[in-house]
Amino acid sequence: MINVAVLGFGVVGSGVVELIEKNAETINKGLKEQIKVKKILDIRDFEGHKYQDLFTKDFDEILNDDEISIVIETIGGKEPARTFTEKALKKGKSVVTSNKELVAAFGSELMVTAKENNSYYMFEASVGGAIPVLRPLGTCLAANNITDIWGILNGTTNYILTRMFEGGASFEDALKEAQQKGYAERDPSADVEGHDTMRKIAILMAIASGYETNCDKIMTEGITSIKQEDVKILDKAGYAIRLIGHGKVCDKKVFARVSPMVISKNHPLAGVKDVFNAVMVMGDATDEVMFYGKGAGKFPTASAVVADVIDIAKFNGNPPKYSWEKPDADMMIDIEDTSSMFYVRATGITKQDFDVLEIISEQNGEIAFITSEMNEKAFIAAKKQLELKGAEFKAVIRKLL
Amino acid sequence: MINVAVLGFGVVGSGVVELIEKNAETINKGLKEQIKVKKILDIRDFEGHKYQDLFTKDFDEILNDDEISIVIETIGGKEPARTFTEKALKKGKSVVTSNKELVAAFGSELMVTAKENNSYYMFEASVGGAIPVLRPLGTCLAANNITDIWGILNGTTNYILTRMFEGGASFEDALKEAQQKGYAERDPSADVEGHDTMRKIAILMAIASGYETNCDKIMTEGITSIKQEDVKILDKAGYAIRLIGHGKVCDKKVFARVSPMVISKNHPLAGVKDVFNAVMVMGDATDEVMFYGKGAGKFPTASAVVADVIDIAKFNGNPPKYSWEKPDADMMIDIEDTSSMFYVRATGITKQDFDVLEIISEQNGEIAFITSEMNEKAFIAAKKQLELKGAEFKAVIRKLL
Repeated sequence: MINVAVLGFGVVGSGVVELIEKNAETINKGLKEQIKVKKILDIRDFEGHKYQDLFTKDFDEILNDDEISIVIETIGGKEPARTFTEKALKKGKSVVTSNKELVAAFGSELMVTAKENNSYYMFEASVGGAIPVLRPLGTCLAANNITDIWGILNGTTNYILTRMFEGGASFEDALKEAQQKGYAERDPSADVEGHDTMRKIAILMAIASGYETNCDKIMTEGITSIKQEDVKILDKAGYAIRLIGHGKVCDKKVFARVSPMVISKNHPLAGVKDVFNAVMVMGDATDEVMFYGKGAGKFPTASAVVADVIDIAKFNGNPPKYSWEKPDADMMIDIEDTSSMFYVRATGITKQDFDVLEIISEQNGEIAFITSEMNEKAFIAAKKQLELKGAEFKAVIRKLL
Repeated sequence: MINVAVLGFGVVGSGVVELIEKNAETINKGLKEQIKVKKILDIRDFEGHKYQDLFTKDFDEILNDDEISIVIETIGGKEPARTFTEKALKKGKSVVTSNKELVAAFGSELMVTAKENNSYYMFEASVGGAIPVLRPLGTCLAANNITDIWGILNGTTNYILTRMFEGGASFEDALKEAQQKGYAERDPSADVEGHDTMRKIAILMAIASGYETNCDKIMTEGITSIKQEDVKILDKAGYAIRLIGHGKVCDKKVFARVSPMVISKNHPLAGVKDVFNAVMVMGDATDEVMFYGKGAGKFPTASAVVADVIDIAKFNGNPPKYSWEKPDADMMIDIEDTSSMFYVRATGITKQDFDVLEIISEQNGEIAFITSEMNEKAFIAAKKQLELKGAEFKAVIRKLL
């Protein structure tokens, strides 16, 4: 018997417990010992609940139970998740998690702690929910130098953007709708301001580069300022907007940014709608590879958690890992040294003011266009100069190359 | 040093040798011993070639070289690939291949031979080229009961269909174009008649179900009879056609079919264009998950081959495998017991003759529509009866549910 404990009986935690029971035959196929949930930690009372005998409010009961070899952390947030994870790893228990915040911030340390104690810290569920992406990135694409990753990593914002484009909704109305459907939290800031996407692109880039990505250096811009005017103009011209986490590896240096991006409707990422997520990876041997599926939800996320548990059980002492290290020096490329194409909508400027690739619309003294690729610093300088001359920039959105 | 031998220096074989050299730093990162190509088997002469010292025409030189622990078979076809693979496995060497024909027909036996000799038979490259799909299916989705797989598994036919829809080309012209671009072989029958797709869906379904899929029972229909009339009518109504390998697991029984299918342009598989491939997997926990990328080509395929080699090297004695067994009894569901939606274009019938979901066009006594889901046998019977009454069915194409 492989005894596991689940920390936190919320959406994901309860999904894990139910999935291990529901799909027991499939899950245990090929395992020498069966996976069994022995304890569930939650501060709430669950009297009369189907699993009432499994609940405990005392983490030490789990920590000191030598029969429990795998701890599943689905509490989320930094504390007490971090302390529990550290303690479990130090006891030689492996920890499986869906907690992207913890992985992005303390993944490097926790992986070292795991290694020192012959245990494993695994977190496939922390990025892309049901989508198998961390393991394929770390194993199936191992013969590649990864140059770029573009991810639609947050279902809430993708739902909002889809509704804005396909339903003509304003940002505010689309957000309300997402909240009514249970896709967005009452405080949606982590989603709509891009922080959730930022943590996930940090994890992806750490695996791609082999080194921790410094979250503080990821320029993060959300979707709160996307206007209906731009949606209308872009939609008509064959473009969509997606909130993209983009990372790039350049001469062993790394760059990452989260921002809304204009993309052609013919691009595979434009086909990613509603709450779906997708990760596109550019490898020097594979060319582009895309992974697509549900990025959140009870069973999709539980599926990824349980897959990690199966791997630890099946490849005892040697599961297929994805990992990274802390770099000796700062590896992050300064955002000013990067270049982008820009969608611009403004008054008081002409198409001669930029190297314009495509004019999107031109009416009533307002012009909207897409520039050719240009340096970030140069763009900001040009914008400032034009503003001094009276130009008004109503929208600036990067375009996916 | 992990010495490998490459059998066949064609497109894929040469790609493997070049990739192992080109990306040596990335490939060997995290390995205790470096991967090195020690021998290349090819019947041709390579005097003056960069790798001339590595070539041999004698397979026994590789077989009897105890330093060679992994054999990479990129010859393709059944013989001599099968004999070489068997001999290598029996010597305790692991074999990595891109040969879908061999894997689909003799995979079960070769995996048993491997197991008996403590070696591995791995074939990620046999399906979907660069796309990581077999390993994710066997590991990341292991907590799921897989119910359906839909795959665009052949780049040649997908290119032809894309050109027919987006370029207005006839099948014949699009095929010629594909041949000129090197996407289609001079004898394109294995591609356009669906046999290549059939082998790949057989492999996918074997991993999904755990049991060998009997290729003889996979109803296989190619794209040679797709007419421009239907392309025009469907395109206007918001539909595309893709050649789909579809497999279904039902009460531990399996069904698989290869056929052109009508799909809505909003469906993620409709966004898969030109020579790209994609595999959509439906799991009971994940819901739909899609893998997308280049299904063929020198380096994309080599990337998948080398990833298998890395896995054998890294997880020595326990690489993350995908495997299946021969079933005791026939597991294949009879095609007559399945049901589909049908796109029909015909004269001499009315919309009352079927349970019609959507009328696509109606002119000059010809009607085109999509039926609701109906049993295969019932559809064929209805068609026959109508034909006896003078109806002429000009096109029948299944629709993706």
